[in-house]
Amino acid sequence: MIEQRERLKKQIEFIKEIDKLKLILRQTVLMDQSRQENDAEHTWHLAMMALVLLEHTTEPQPDLLKVFKMLLVHDIVEIDAGDTFAYDVVGYEDKQEREMKAAERIFGLLPEDQRQELMSLWLEFEECDSLDAKYAAAIDRTQPLLHNYYTGGVAWKKHGVRSSQVLARISGVAEISPALYELVTELIRDAVKQGYLQE
Amino acid sequence: MIEQRERLKKQIEFIKEIDKLKLILRQTVLMDQSRQENDAEHTWHLAMMALVLLEHTTEPQPDLLKVFKMLLVHDIVEIDAGDTFAYDVVGYEDKQEREMKAAERIFGLLPEDQRQELMSLWLEFEECDSLDAKYAAAIDRTQPLLHNYYTGGVAWKKHGVRSSQVLARISGVAEISPALYELVTELIRDAVKQGYLQE
Repeated sequence: MIEQRERLKKQIEFIKEIDKLKLILRQTVLMDQSRQENDAEHTWHLAMMALVLLEHTTEPQPDLLKVFKMLLVHDIVEIDAGDTFAYDVVGYEDKQEREMKAAERIFGLLPEDQRQELMSLWLEFEECDSLDAKYAAAIDRTQPLLHNYYTGGVAWKKHGVRSSQVLARISGVAEISPALYELVTELIRDAVKQGYLQE
Repeated sequence: MIEQRERLKKQIEFIKEIDKLKLILRQTVLMDQSRQENDAEHTWHLAMMALVLLEHTTEPQPDLLKVFKMLLVHDIVEIDAGDTFAYDVVGYEDKQEREMKAAERIFGLLPEDQRQELMSLWLEFEECDSLDAKYAAAIDRTQPLLHNYYTGGVAWKKHGVRSSQVLARISGVAEISPALYELVTELIRDAVKQGYLQE
């Protein structure tokens, strides 16, 4: 009982701490362009996408429970490390180091077995080798692309992003979901035509 | 191929539409009190809580995949129906009707099989009869309580909420998680002592 109580106390501290993810702003703007998106609501949107787009993955299908867990935790490190814009070369230089330190502090608030579980979910997402991680990453790449496309390229224009950069970023989608890849590459071609993206 | 393409088109329409959940504000404020919480980020927080608090449930344990799905969709109807404050008696009068209409419109954007799946997840959450729904609901009741307690009762004070109302609202937590119930009732007692909640 005392041990359970100690675990619960640590878990509540963690739950309080991760509230800060709602304050981490991304470059992406909401579909209505009223404001920038934050990491917590972005993560919910990704989980919804993972749910409704699962049928478009190659066989064997990813394990949706694992994908949900990975998505739920994948941005938590940004509470300390901040959001690094996908096309920010300088920011990417020390991204890994900053994020590892953040993971150790934040997941470290939990009981040891849970710290290990969340750390390994996050590392699996970052390494992007497993089927589940590839699907989670494909969703994480596709969502901001949809937001950019349907807002007339707000964030792309602001940062002068080129279509080759976006294509490189979503290249992994092709392997895990050919149908989704076909759709997003069409959107990219149209985005160039419309002037949302530089050629 | 044409059918898959049609399904994907509907799914993308749905994904665009549910972005609006990020604009639905709740009475709860963030832990740092900087602003009100929105439904999308709230949902992410619930899913994280469901993940880290699972061990405190009674046997047999809820099915976490099902709980995640239920939580992910449980507030989507509020895009049309708005957030009804937990202690708003008048708002609750036509809540069910407003929300059913919303569910039909929003889930109806999806292919028929997915419309049915999401509708039944939402209804199961609303009916709160199954083990999985009870756990999801326990988490959904506990999260705003934590936010209220750790912000000195901001939303409770604003609406003059009494401890008996909060106790009634969280009564379902006792059945699914005695340990969590013990903790939240302690917080409620302390909240009364601190003047966050009316006796």
